[in-house]
Amino acid sequence: MSRFFTKTLAQLEPYTPGEQLKIPDLIKINANENPYPPAPGVAQAVAGCVDGLRLYSDLTEAKLVAAIAKHCGVAPENVVCGNGSDENLLLALRAFCDQTHPLAFADITYSFYPVLCDLLHIPQHILPVEQDFTIDLTKYYGLSGETIVIANPNAPTSLLQPVAAIEEVVRRNPDSVVIVDEAYIDFAGAGATCIPLTQKYDNVMVVQTFSKSHNLAGARLGFAVADPALIADMNRIKFSYSPYNINSLSEAAGAAAMADEAYFGKTTAAILATRTSTTARLRSLGFTVLPSATNFVFASTDRMPAKEIFLKLRSRGILIRYFSAPQRIDNWLRITIGTDGQMDALVAALKEILA
Amino acid sequence: MSRFFTKTLAQLEPYTPGEQLKIPDLIKINANENPYPPAPGVAQAVAGCVDGLRLYSDLTEAKLVAAIAKHCGVAPENVVCGNGSDENLLLALRAFCDQTHPLAFADITYSFYPVLCDLLHIPQHILPVEQDFTIDLTKYYGLSGETIVIANPNAPTSLLQPVAAIEEVVRRNPDSVVIVDEAYIDFAGAGATCIPLTQKYDNVMVVQTFSKSHNLAGARLGFAVADPALIADMNRIKFSYSPYNINSLSEAAGAAAMADEAYFGKTTAAILATRTSTTARLRSLGFTVLPSATNFVFASTDRMPAKEIFLKLRSRGILIRYFSAPQRIDNWLRITIGTDGQMDALVAALKEILA
Repeated sequence: MSRFFTKTLAQLEPYTPGEQLKIPDLIKINANENPYPPAPGVAQAVAGCVDGLRLYSDLTEAKLVAAIAKHCGVAPENVVCGNGSDENLLLALRAFCDQTHPLAFADITYSFYPVLCDLLHIPQHILPVEQDFTIDLTKYYGLSGETIVIANPNAPTSLLQPVAAIEEVVRRNPDSVVIVDEAYIDFAGAGATCIPLTQKYDNVMVVQTFSKSHNLAGARLGFAVADPALIADMNRIKFSYSPYNINSLSEAAGAAAMADEAYFGKTTAAILATRTSTTARLRSLGFTVLPSATNFVFASTDRMPAKEIFLKLRSRGILIRYFSAPQRIDNWLRITIGTDGQMDALVAALKEILA
Repeated sequence: MSRFFTKTLAQLEPYTPGEQLKIPDLIKINANENPYPPAPGVAQAVAGCVDGLRLYSDLTEAKLVAAIAKHCGVAPENVVCGNGSDENLLLALRAFCDQTHPLAFADITYSFYPVLCDLLHIPQHILPVEQDFTIDLTKYYGLSGETIVIANPNAPTSLLQPVAAIEEVVRRNPDSVVIVDEAYIDFAGAGATCIPLTQKYDNVMVVQTFSKSHNLAGARLGFAVADPALIADMNRIKFSYSPYNINSLSEAAGAAAMADEAYFGKTTAAILATRTSTTARLRSLGFTVLPSATNFVFASTDRMPAKEIFLKLRSRGILIRYFSAPQRIDNWLRITIGTDGQMDALVAALKEILA
């Protein structure tokens, strides 16, 4: 860092994103992206707003908020949008945490939470997951004076908690905001989302993204659903730091993607079918595969160290995610569910590697 | 705010953006937007990346950075992009200011600086502009331990400082980062930009935007040019808070807009010609108009209070910017240069109002 860089952030360890390999014909199943293109209506929606780019975007994001509210069955006052889900997490942490209000979260979860805490000087209360990677949510009761974030389903473990278990956390922390990060919830089946809790409790916020189930990772769109008072708090931060946070093109893309429930249903179902078959095939190759509620699987085998499998797949042009962090997951692999064809190639390569 | 909102930001006064009136046939000359649509190549560039939206955007923004570097005559290592210029200001303030390193800036300037300082708990060193709204940059010498931001041309005054005067500030503050906010520089004529200083000094950063001269306010794109060490500092913050800050659609739009130097030259020249004629017409109506180096004019008259003119124009469907803040500018109006037709309508309305 330069001699001008603030000493208060000298220890900052920036988030390490998944590898961006530029190889022709790469099978890229390392970043939990959707293998299917955006909904057919997205192209026209985007084309329709190019001339209007000379004007600032709508800082209330009214069209996008309306589409999200309709999809989620809530009111527009329950919704705020972010430039990616990461921005909503930033707004929430800035609004509901500070140096005397820690953020509580699991040791094995989305690795961006500790990065944001470091940036914002927020103390971290880290709660280890169990030996089998499940989360014992009774350990989250009575965390007075803390804000809580629970990724559900969790990443990279892919495991889901039932709404009732999360509701107990919300109920037993009435003076804390409980953030439920539902980036992968649309792959968890009906009734898995905690959005209904936002209509019942004033201290729960559900964060979702367009990056996975709505095929728009490149558009950078996320949203949060909560009691209107919490949404107003989020907007208070947003207007102090990036009033026009969503660009017009992404707003149009997101609204069109969210309106096409049929395409959403079809592509999500295709991913779930491929997940079922991939899980079975990996198990037959000797992998332990956790029961996934996401668009990826978390797998491990005694047949070869995870890092070696990762590197051998990589040399064959198949990119999956390996976590070298000194955690309990250093013999596990995170594999995004791609198309059936991509999974065929993966399984064939694994057979060769493990032969 | 809700009972959960952090007490550390209870005093936050969010930035107030220009009014977003939704009136048919509105003449919107209140937000310094470009009256001309984006360059012709933007539509195709955007259409070409819709299918790829399923993938994350390029977190190095290589194509956009290359286009900017070429346009500015610098190396890619000198450039970082932001989700709007506001984000670059945020990254810079986070990187180069803290509770013991204040930000120095003028009392009459871009109103977002104090908002960001409040959000980030950065002390403000406010330097009043002169009675005639010029800035005496000798007052910026020797501000040891402070970061400095100078909007050049300044807003809303529209006044330009020569590069040599800013170079003196850079030279006389060798241990401070000097940020030159050049949002409007492309309307200031040849040789006005401080970008060449970034090749000579390690403590100057130039911030520019696609919102004005590149007709892309809705795409939310800004960039900073500086010594590679300062750019690395900016990226250090970026990767801790929003690694994928630029979406793929805006990246493509920005690269296409920046590559079309002919369209840029033509639309900029058209705005300068309209500015010249508008300035003359306003003066003939009895307005004092500062000599503008921007795509707006800053004007005042003794014939009627500014607020009354603003409201009367508004009721005629013409929206300009009036600053009600209790500053020295409460009898001044900021008027964006639109098309010749829009300016005809403005002048006709002013003639009626002042008759």
